[in-house]
Amino acid sequence: MRIGILGTGMVGRTLSDGLASLGHEVVLGTRDPAETRERTRPDQYGFALAPWFEANPQIRLATFADAAAQSEIVVNATAGIASLDVLGAAGAANLDGKILIDVANALDFSRGMPPSLKASTEDSLAERIQAAFPGARVVKTLNTVGSSYQTRPMDLAEGDHSTFVCGNDEAAKATVTELLRSLGWRDIIDLGDLRAARATEMVMPLWIALLGALGLPPKFQFKVVR
Amino acid sequence: MRIGILGTGMVGRTLSDGLASLGHEVVLGTRDPAETRERTRPDQYGFALAPWFEANPQIRLATFADAAAQSEIVVNATAGIASLDVLGAAGAANLDGKILIDVANALDFSRGMPPSLKASTEDSLAERIQAAFPGARVVKTLNTVGSSYQTRPMDLAEGDHSTFVCGNDEAAKATVTELLRSLGWRDIIDLGDLRAARATEMVMPLWIALLGALGLPPKFQFKVVR
Repeated sequence: MRIGILGTGMVGRTLSDGLASLGHEVVLGTRDPAETRERTRPDQYGFALAPWFEANPQIRLATFADAAAQSEIVVNATAGIASLDVLGAAGAANLDGKILIDVANALDFSRGMPPSLKASTEDSLAERIQAAFPGARVVKTLNTVGSSYQTRPMDLAEGDHSTFVCGNDEAAKATVTELLRSLGWRDIIDLGDLRAARATEMVMPLWIALLGALGLPPKFQFKVVR
Repeated sequence: MRIGILGTGMVGRTLSDGLASLGHEVVLGTRDPAETRERTRPDQYGFALAPWFEANPQIRLATFADAAAQSEIVVNATAGIASLDVLGAAGAANLDGKILIDVANALDFSRGMPPSLKASTEDSLAERIQAAFPGARVVKTLNTVGSSYQTRPMDLAEGDHSTFVCGNDEAAKATVTELLRSLGWRDIIDLGDLRAARATEMVMPLWIALLGALGLPPKFQFKVVR
């Protein structure tokens, strides 16, 4: 499938790599493709984009709008607090009728580490995205999973751990579930409509606390034992 | 040990039962012991207290204050939105220097099911309790675990799942960890000081969402796979 991934951070790169290796046509969306491709300055994690793009010529780069327009499935892999802006730049028309996979968390890093999160059982980022882009078929998934395992679940405990999907469009959810299975996910728990994103988005502080308790790099994942 | 458990709901009863069966002297704290012991009216889950007390004569019943005063360890097993009131009734002097195990979640059932939770990475019920009772040695644990597995972790997947502890008093945390081990808990993850309760308290909405997805009664538990 043609998949547009919005965001060139660690999550966006890992997803683009993993999905391209399955044979999907992946295009990475960014604000300014020329600037992004030439970026040699390391980010906060010491990662420079330019060498990565040189080493991964199969990953195309486009504006947010072009990446969305060219794709059947769009993935929101941006920082959660920027997601609505980026999706606005992608353009409602380019998202209309498309599956929009939201893997973001609305963490606020503005006051340093650990990031803060204001959350409630009455709201979620995924629902704010769905409300802002009613033509998109939003499916929330993978936001509770560290980027290294999102596309390589088999790298930990032979894949014996869990992820969640939720969304208001059953067909979109089924397509995303199939995509997850193709990546090796075995335990994909359907939590129902998009309101369940309130619950999965509230898990991120525990993920961060575990990072503190178990150390870097993140080598853990949640499993729902039953 | 002498353990006072505040709250006669499902969590309080299960904990008192499990801890008494290990040989601990358990006293259940309630607002009005005479009224509680005679209560034949079923609660919202169809459970009547009077026959349970008749069947469990080893569980003593006392006022919140007496239960706390008589005990070395106090457990807050009350509804989270009532916890500060109940602990106030137990009395700061009766909590002074004691280990206070907080297993509560600040869920708000006032608007029906599912309960709502306002949560933030800047606050937690456990920290509010610690601030209100600075003499108590608060340890948060088991609040992410369904009551049926809190004292019987081996009943699911031979105990192959996780719970968390956090608190500001290392000795208190070590005692609670030992108590958890005596119940059969094998994977007890120390998340650090009490601020980590922000993270574990935010997990409860996922627990409730899973209840919806997987059905009643709750037969699941979280495991941190690594």
